[in-house]
Amino acid sequence: MSKISEQQIHFLVEAIEASYPKNQLAIPLEFVSQPKRELIIKVIFILRELLFLEYFGQRQLISTTIKYHIGDLLINVHKILHEQMVLALTYQAIEKNSPLDNINEKVNEIIFLFLSKIPELRCMIELDIQAAFNGDPAATDKNEIIYSYPGVFAVSIYRLAHELQLLSLPLIPRIMTEYAHSVTGIDIHPGATIGKYFFIDHGTGVVIGETTTIGNNVKIYQGVTLGALSTREGQKLRGVKRHPTIEDDVTIYSGTSILGGETVIGKGAVIGSNVFLTKSVPAKTKVSVKIPELMYKGRINKESDPEYMVLDI
Amino acid sequence: MSKISEQQIHFLVEAIEASYPKNQLAIPLEFVSQPKRELIIKVIFILRELLFLEYFGQRQLISTTIKYHIGDLLINVHKILHEQMVLALTYQAIEKNSPLDNINEKVNEIIFLFLSKIPELRCMIELDIQAAFNGDPAATDKNEIIYSYPGVFAVSIYRLAHELQLLSLPLIPRIMTEYAHSVTGIDIHPGATIGKYFFIDHGTGVVIGETTTIGNNVKIYQGVTLGALSTREGQKLRGVKRHPTIEDDVTIYSGTSILGGETVIGKGAVIGSNVFLTKSVPAKTKVSVKIPELMYKGRINKESDPEYMVLDI
Amino acid sequence: MSKISEQQIHFLVEAIEASYPKNQLAIPLEFVSQPKRELIIKVIFILRELLFLEYFGQRQLISTTIKYHIGDLLINVHKILHEQMVLALTYQAIEKNSPLDNINEKVNEIIFLFLSKIPELRCMIELDIQAAFNGDPAATDKNEIIYSYPGVFAVSIYRLAHELQLLSLPLIPRIMTEYAHSVTGIDIHPGATIGKYFFIDHGTGVVIGETTTIGNNVKIYQGVTLGALSTREGQKLRGVKRHPTIEDDVTIYSGTSILGGETVIGKGAVIGSNVFLTKSVPAKTKVSVKIPELMYKGRINKESDPEYMVLDI
Repeated sequence: MSKISEQQIHFLVEAIEASYPKNQLAIPLEFVSQPKRELIIKVIFILRELLFLEYFGQRQLISTTIKYHIGDLLINVHKILHEQMVLALTYQAIEKNSPLDNINEKVNEIIFLFLSKIPELRCMIELDIQAAFNGDPAATDKNEIIYSYPGVFAVSIYRLAHELQLLSLPLIPRIMTEYAHSVTGIDIHPGATIGKYFFIDHGTGVVIGETTTIGNNVKIYQGVTLGALSTREGQKLRGVKRHPTIEDDVTIYSGTSILGGETVIGKGAVIGSNVFLTKSVPAKTKVSVKIPELMYKGRINKESDPEYMVLDI
Repeated sequence: MSKISEQQIHFLVEAIEASYPKNQLAIPLEFVSQPKRELIIKVIFILRELLFLEYFGQRQLISTTIKYHIGDLLINVHKILHEQMVLALTYQAIEKNSPLDNINEKVNEIIFLFLSKIPELRCMIELDIQAAFNGDPAATDKNEIIYSYPGVFAVSIYRLAHELQLLSLPLIPRIMTEYAHSVTGIDIHPGATIGKYFFIDHGTGVVIGETTTIGNNVKIYQGVTLGALSTREGQKLRGVKRHPTIEDDVTIYSGTSILGGETVIGKGAVIGSNVFLTKSVPAKTKVSVKIPELMYKGRINKESDPEYMVLDI
Repeated sequence: MSKISEQQIHFLVEAIEASYPKNQLAIPLEFVSQPKRELIIKVIFILRELLFLEYFGQRQLISTTIKYHIGDLLINVHKILHEQMVLALTYQAIEKNSPLDNINEKVNEIIFLFLSKIPELRCMIELDIQAAFNGDPAATDKNEIIYSYPGVFAVSIYRLAHELQLLSLPLIPRIMTEYAHSVTGIDIHPGATIGKYFFIDHGTGVVIGETTTIGNNVKIYQGVTLGALSTREGQKLRGVKRHPTIEDDVTIYSGTSILGGETVIGKGAVIGSNVFLTKSVPAKTKVSVKIPELMYKGRINKESDPEYMVLDI
């Protein structure tokens, strides 16, 4: 009796099928063949292997034969990326009702430009790892950082996705950074611009919006939002600079929100925990919130003590 | 020498086995056969395919033959859900020492009622997607939202789990929403009541408690807690309304906590970032925290400047 | 045309290969064979089965034959752990340029000591589950807690990782707790010391630093940071006590940060939401933040009302 009854399944199939043509989101089903999130995640892991063969390579590596592994990984990643990019660009073209000429050539060109960035990205990400090591007393070696630090993982994926975003590839960059978000709790939009030697410590709850600009040697902690002042106007704000600019050598401690497209945090500034900023801060300035008064209520000597002692600690 | 020695394994087996009968949590092992989290997650993904065949279907779809896919998915999801529900209800019955009559029929009835909700849920979730598109300038199309927005993912799973919760199914609804929590950082209890056109932006750190009620057209941001004032009394509070009511058209910005079962946020209210509310707010009211004084300490002209400048920016 | 051109692949292979010898992070490729994160995660799941055979066992269990399952799981976990530990210790030895004598024996000894702790860990984790049940009105039974509560999952993995950390095993403990972090948003360093009957509710955004000490019967909520005051000195602070001490019977509500190695929260203290503490608190004291003034702006009777009403609610 664990099977669904014939009558029930007929009823359900009809009801669900009937709900499909009413669907206002869909473009005609015949044309739809969507990119697959699982394959895009697979691309992320092949790219990570390419970036750090010595850490994520699946085989015993010999430095003189390393090129065979690189070649093999490149052929592999090209194949999957090509397929997914064709799907993403085809969908976009149908949606925008724009022509689809030379899609294979266009995609090959994007992939080649993207893969040519790998050596540069290797250097960038190594600097991020160095920043994590220098900035965290709990780090014992770089090995540990590469294998376990969520900040480094999220920033690495952002750096890959950002290159694809610069090449105007739709959908795929965001799927990549949202994958990192789901794994780390760190939400970096692929459109953000982030300089060298960047470290996010702990990271859960960090949000870095689409039009944020971050300089070199910046360090931020868990729960920091670099966001927009208000998105009440929604789609009217598309493309407008609405997230802050963080200049070089800035540190932003946990739980702080910095909002607005005209807000600039000057070079070398240090912003304390739990600050809420919607205006600019000059260079080399320390900003901290005046810690709100704390109320103490002791529960031991109820007779002698006032019920509430308000103290400033 | 990489094998464990015979002597050691005998010792360990005895020690661990000995720890089992002392276990105060277990009901007799013979009766225990628990639902499997992996299969419940599989159910989530089949349901998502049923809800959005055009996005998550594994095959090239033709609108005239779509019913074969729907039928196939229904048979599949029924089979797995039936098995897991029988396990969950059997465990509950043993635990409560209550009779177990007609379990197959009962389960078939629950599943049929649940699957009959699919067309309605499709409409609900499409409105959530529309809300995300309208509310987020960074969204380029609905495709991107469906494939990558954690808020939409968490709310979709909540909507499915909530229907099962209404049908008094134990354990499985919570496993579903906690899976969404693990993927998105958004913790929605399946018992909460949430209206149409709901959008959670970014989302990491959001908590929506069991007895929360949310109206239509509500938008909330990362780090918002809709929680209980205190749970010190623990199990004594079971079933008591202890989380807030949020009326229609309310916006709640990031990091805000709204606590307590008698707290009502009136229709159209806007609650700013980092507010801590334990009392009701009238309709159409804007509430913001008076931003705490910030302390600035410039580090350039140490001679001329006072060490701390307290400014209100 | 979906293949990468021969010319392009040669160019890319050369470019990427060329970037490898410049890599300052790598130790000679020939020596590198790293632990595999996937296998360490597999170890976590086997250990969880060992700890809770009645919940996670893959087979129908009979209490009189349970020892066969325990034996089988022990042999299995020993095999994988041994392999991964040899890799981790070998890498560490090469990195530190220290000798590698008797590695198999050393590893066997560590694993035996570790596995001998399983019965004790079973008891500890059962107390954590009991604490969750007693502390959360939304919990319907312990089954639900074991299968779905992220706090219990993260603390269980921490307890396993902490034992390996005490045995001076590099890398693997941190990979374990960071896996829990990625699944739950709860970041507990394996070096932290945590007493019995510990419960983290909701949990997303919690950070518990390396040198934190937590007593028995402590309860904390989402977004709590037990952190360091500043890590600007980075590696110079390695090993220094820089995170707080939380004594027995303390409750810490959501969003609170407690920072600094000399900060002690006394026995029985209750720390409210959103408190920022860098100094000690005496035993049995309640600390809450004086809730910042809220500003209300009604939008209905614009004529009669002042534009801003500042009220204390």
